[in-house]
Amino acid sequence: MFESSDLVSEDLKILENFLNNSSENSNISLVSSVISHLIKAGGKRLRPALVFIVCKMLSYQDEENKRIRVAAAIEFIHNATLLHDDVLDGGELRRGVSTANKIWGNKTSILVGDFLLTMAFQWLIECENFDVLSILSQSSATIVSGEIKQMLICSNITMTEQDYIDVVSAKTAALFAASCEAAATLAKVSVEEREALKSFGVNFGIAFQIIDDVLDYSGEQSGKNLGNDFYNRKVTLPVIISYDLADEAEKEFWQSSFGKIKNCGNFQKAISYIKNHKAIELAKEKAESYIKIAKESLDIFPSSLYKTALINLLDFTLHRKL
Amino acid sequence: MFESSDLVSEDLKILENFLNNSSENSNISLVSSVISHLIKAGGKRLRPALVFIVCKMLSYQDEENKRIRVAAAIEFIHNATLLHDDVLDGGELRRGVSTANKIWGNKTSILVGDFLLTMAFQWLIECENFDVLSILSQSSATIVSGEIKQMLICSNITMTEQDYIDVVSAKTAALFAASCEAAATLAKVSVEEREALKSFGVNFGIAFQIIDDVLDYSGEQSGKNLGNDFYNRKVTLPVIISYDLADEAEKEFWQSSFGKIKNCGNFQKAISYIKNHKAIELAKEKAESYIKIAKESLDIFPSSLYKTALINLLDFTLHRKL
Repeated sequence: MFESSDLVSEDLKILENFLNNSSENSNISLVSSVISHLIKAGGKRLRPALVFIVCKMLSYQDEENKRIRVAAAIEFIHNATLLHDDVLDGGELRRGVSTANKIWGNKTSILVGDFLLTMAFQWLIECENFDVLSILSQSSATIVSGEIKQMLICSNITMTEQDYIDVVSAKTAALFAASCEAAATLAKVSVEEREALKSFGVNFGIAFQIIDDVLDYSGEQSGKNLGNDFYNRKVTLPVIISYDLADEAEKEFWQSSFGKIKNCGNFQKAISYIKNHKAIELAKEKAESYIKIAKESLDIFPSSLYKTALINLLDFTLHRKL
Repeated sequence: MFESSDLVSEDLKILENFLNNSSENSNISLVSSVISHLIKAGGKRLRPALVFIVCKMLSYQDEENKRIRVAAAIEFIHNATLLHDDVLDGGELRRGVSTANKIWGNKTSILVGDFLLTMAFQWLIECENFDVLSILSQSSATIVSGEIKQMLICSNITMTEQDYIDVVSAKTAALFAASCEAAATLAKVSVEEREALKSFGVNFGIAFQIIDDVLDYSGEQSGKNLGNDFYNRKVTLPVIISYDLADEAEKEFWQSSFGKIKNCGNFQKAISYIKNHKAIELAKEKAESYIKIAKESLDIFPSSLYKTALINLLDFTLHRKL
């Protein structure tokens, strides 16, 4: 996966066991199957890794494995949004494997998504920490409002970079921020430290999503279908940049052909415009600027293996290829 | 609405204001519109009424309006399930008005449903009562598992009465029970009293759903589309009873025609079989048996206006026509 997680590999193993048990404990075999599919499809467990690394960096003494429950809850909130997201988008591939809605249908994805959300809250409640509950419940609301904003404006080719950053801040960065803030809250650090970690999370999350969106046009072996966003008429930063720099003929292309069905060369044409305007590089520079702020947010913390691990995570994100 | 709610009309007014404010406070106008539509479509506010009546019966002194937040959360959890339910069923009418998915589409219904759920949990967290949080979070999980079971077995014409009761217990009765149990928990009564109220809620809820399902075949002015369950191939008690009593020809009809599209007389034929076997009356008797248990659950409480109000709610349910 990535080196930083080696430092918390024990915690990540406990998490996998915890998640696997939760899947086996469901008394509905369909639910077990979907959860097991999601767990096996894996993903990077980036948000749990954030929880664990921050907990370690802040020397949190966790005798009741609260960090595991918090990390599991965050991973399930994330997976719940993915399930509903794939229904909304009609996504068929994620992380290189078939999406749940492709295998089991939309109804199952909607309901199991709901189920994951209720499980997440049950684990959070077990932690008996109202601040952590508030952080995660607030961030869940923010994620959903981000999804709604995305649905409302992201098919609009003239949407601005600020609109895009607003959506990304809500739908992705909020949960990165919550992962860091929840860990900081468990560790009972000062408000200043908590805010610094929240800022790290927000800026990391924005950068992560920008790179994710860039890979939809430049990824070589992306687990997602290349061109997913294009065909779903989901405007992301590379498109916004290209459209801003486009001449009249190109603007006409984007307006008429963006999101149009496959096999007519539209996607290849879009990629060539994106390349011509160096929109991939410009989007990456934007991501880099957020990563810079994220790094600076950590300045108040003394050097440590864990702080370095957080910084490595940022660099890993910027340079990932899939 | 119904007489029992007159006793808690002040609380119900405060609740309406609270819900209306929550709709206005959303900074996404689509969300405000959907929530406002749901609030105006109204419904009976039966679950909030249960919370309020039980709180009064138990003389709960509520200086921080926790009961309002709990009732609002329960109403929003209920509405979230309705939003997702209508997407699953393709329902177009509910309570006599167009469903949100009919007006705004499935994507909006899925996301606003998610949003309502996160708002509900935020209000519950504000109450700072872990027991109430656990009750509602557990019941949310139960509701979803009920919906999943329903999806899995309810199109099967040979499903048993026990299967049906299991589904109904989870998807409907759990939230009735949680309404009563949460109120009892706020009022800090004995375990015995809390369990009695939970039993009242469960049995009330099962009876309520049976009558609701009966009305899909017998309702005169039902707000739902008459025959909704039939056309959605959703097996409910009147059908289970009719099928159990059916001869070979009728069984063949149910197997081949249940859920088949409109305008071919299938629904009228189904109703005639249901009438011949007195399945409506038999289903109502079943509902009555649950209502009897619900009433008996209240035996341990001394007589009061509020206890009478709970009993009146039961009778109202049994005799409602829409």
